[in-house]
Amino acid sequence: MSTATITRKNSVVYYLGPKGSFSHEAALNLSGEHREANTITDVFKAVLTQSNAFGVVPVENSLEGPVNETLDNLYFEDEIFVGIEIQKKIDLVLATKDAAGEIKRIYSHPYALREAQHSLSRISAQLVPVESTSKAATLALQNSESAALCSRFAAKLYDLKVVHENLQDGVNITRFVAISREISKTGEKTMLLTTVPHRPGGLYRLLERFYHANINLTMIYSRPIRNTPWHYYFYIEFDGEIDDRNVSSCLSSLSEVANVLKIKGSYHTKKA
Amino acid sequence: MSTATITRKNSVVYYLGPKGSFSHEAALNLSGEHREANTITDVFKAVLTQSNAFGVVPVENSLEGPVNETLDNLYFEDEIFVGIEIQKKIDLVLATKDAAGEIKRIYSHPYALREAQHSLSRISAQLVPVESTSKAATLALQNSESAALCSRFAAKLYDLKVVHENLQDGVNITRFVAISREISKTGEKTMLLTTVPHRPGGLYRLLERFYHANINLTMIYSRPIRNTPWHYYFYIEFDGEIDDRNVSSCLSSLSEVANVLKIKGSYHTKKA
Repeated sequence: MSTATITRKNSVVYYLGPKGSFSHEAALNLSGEHREANTITDVFKAVLTQSNAFGVVPVENSLEGPVNETLDNLYFEDEIFVGIEIQKKIDLVLATKDAAGEIKRIYSHPYALREAQHSLSRISAQLVPVESTSKAATLALQNSESAALCSRFAAKLYDLKVVHENLQDGVNITRFVAISREISKTGEKTMLLTTVPHRPGGLYRLLERFYHANINLTMIYSRPIRNTPWHYYFYIEFDGEIDDRNVSSCLSSLSEVANVLKIKGSYHTKKA
Repeated sequence: MSTATITRKNSVVYYLGPKGSFSHEAALNLSGEHREANTITDVFKAVLTQSNAFGVVPVENSLEGPVNETLDNLYFEDEIFVGIEIQKKIDLVLATKDAAGEIKRIYSHPYALREAQHSLSRISAQLVPVESTSKAATLALQNSESAALCSRFAAKLYDLKVVHENLQDGVNITRFVAISREISKTGEKTMLLTTVPHRPGGLYRLLERFYHANINLTMIYSRPIRNTPWHYYFYIEFDGEIDDRNVSSCLSSLSEVANVLKIKGSYHTKKA
């Protein structure tokens, strides 16, 4: 999926809704008709079943780590590939219907509440976890004694007034990826999902291949394989593209040390 | 912290509340006066500031993966060590005040809702995420049209009737650890938190030491270091105890390949 591909006409771009979510904002980097989905898994399902459909899903947050639902879907859906990465700085604002009113309740997604916990500890209001930051915005709109911890984009979309900004603790960047059914072989980075034999040195022998090929891993996460307690798959990203001969030769050799090997594609990064 | 230590008199055992939580149930494996804390971070703070205090915190779930708040506290609190592991099978039940009533809403923690998503998709009720499964139980008690997805322990504690059981998708085990300010050097497994140089082969060179010492890693997770985007620390557990000469020699050699090295102790596993 090249930049040319993602701008092709008549495509549909699914994102984790509701409207005003960070995923929605990230999805606007792809042209097409934007449609919301209820869950990350629903975004994957839509892309799997509809031709000409793309999806934009969060994969990692710099404070909270990986988004498990995305990683698990990438692992289990063999027909889904990754074509572009969108890095988005997350600014959390506090927004209300009535800027002069007292704030008794603050709605937000549990992740966002945690990401702003130090700032919020200075405001004496009840923290109410809800499904999403944009859901929080709709709730704040219904009640003038409430506020939403959400994006500036959501506040604007739901016509709320921003009363505090930059509430996140430290730098907060979320990486999104665009998914489709076509594999891309060019870009700065490549994604790989794999399992290794369950014995001493299993992971070591895999990393050895990258080391000898002088390929830099930019990220490695392990995730439990559901239904097999204490067995894991590894989510790996590294510098380089599949079309590079050194990379493709390294990837070919991994079959000697990996059990499951799922190459998800190479991609460029866009900072949004 | 040996088994003898954890049964010493006058000790206080902190757990993530409210009463009826899975952490509460796990904490009952340690004798002493049991006190609830509002957050995992509060459990750490209590253990840090009070002599004779222990804590019981969830560290990993076999379906959902690591508990980030626990890992981050273990990484940042150098005075806290791990002394015992408690593995607890999580059975989720649906419990209501009135077993004959219609269920319009199901309250639970977002993790539990996700862990039972396939079973719950067969029940047409609104799913409402709340702070904890025991909070869900208290809400179900207030409204006969509601149910809580919680443990049998919580259902019993809050006098709710169990209307469905075994709702979790697949085997669901949570690993808890007991924390204290004393390091333990004996047990089947050892925990280590570490960072490696940010260059090709950083992790590889660390794993090489374990491989050559023939030590089996049972778990490795990476976690972002807050405030330094895309830098990670590794959470590692391996077979063996610090008192073993091969293990201690391997650990000593790690300083050559690691930047930060925090050895959290060796511990036995208890299946509860």
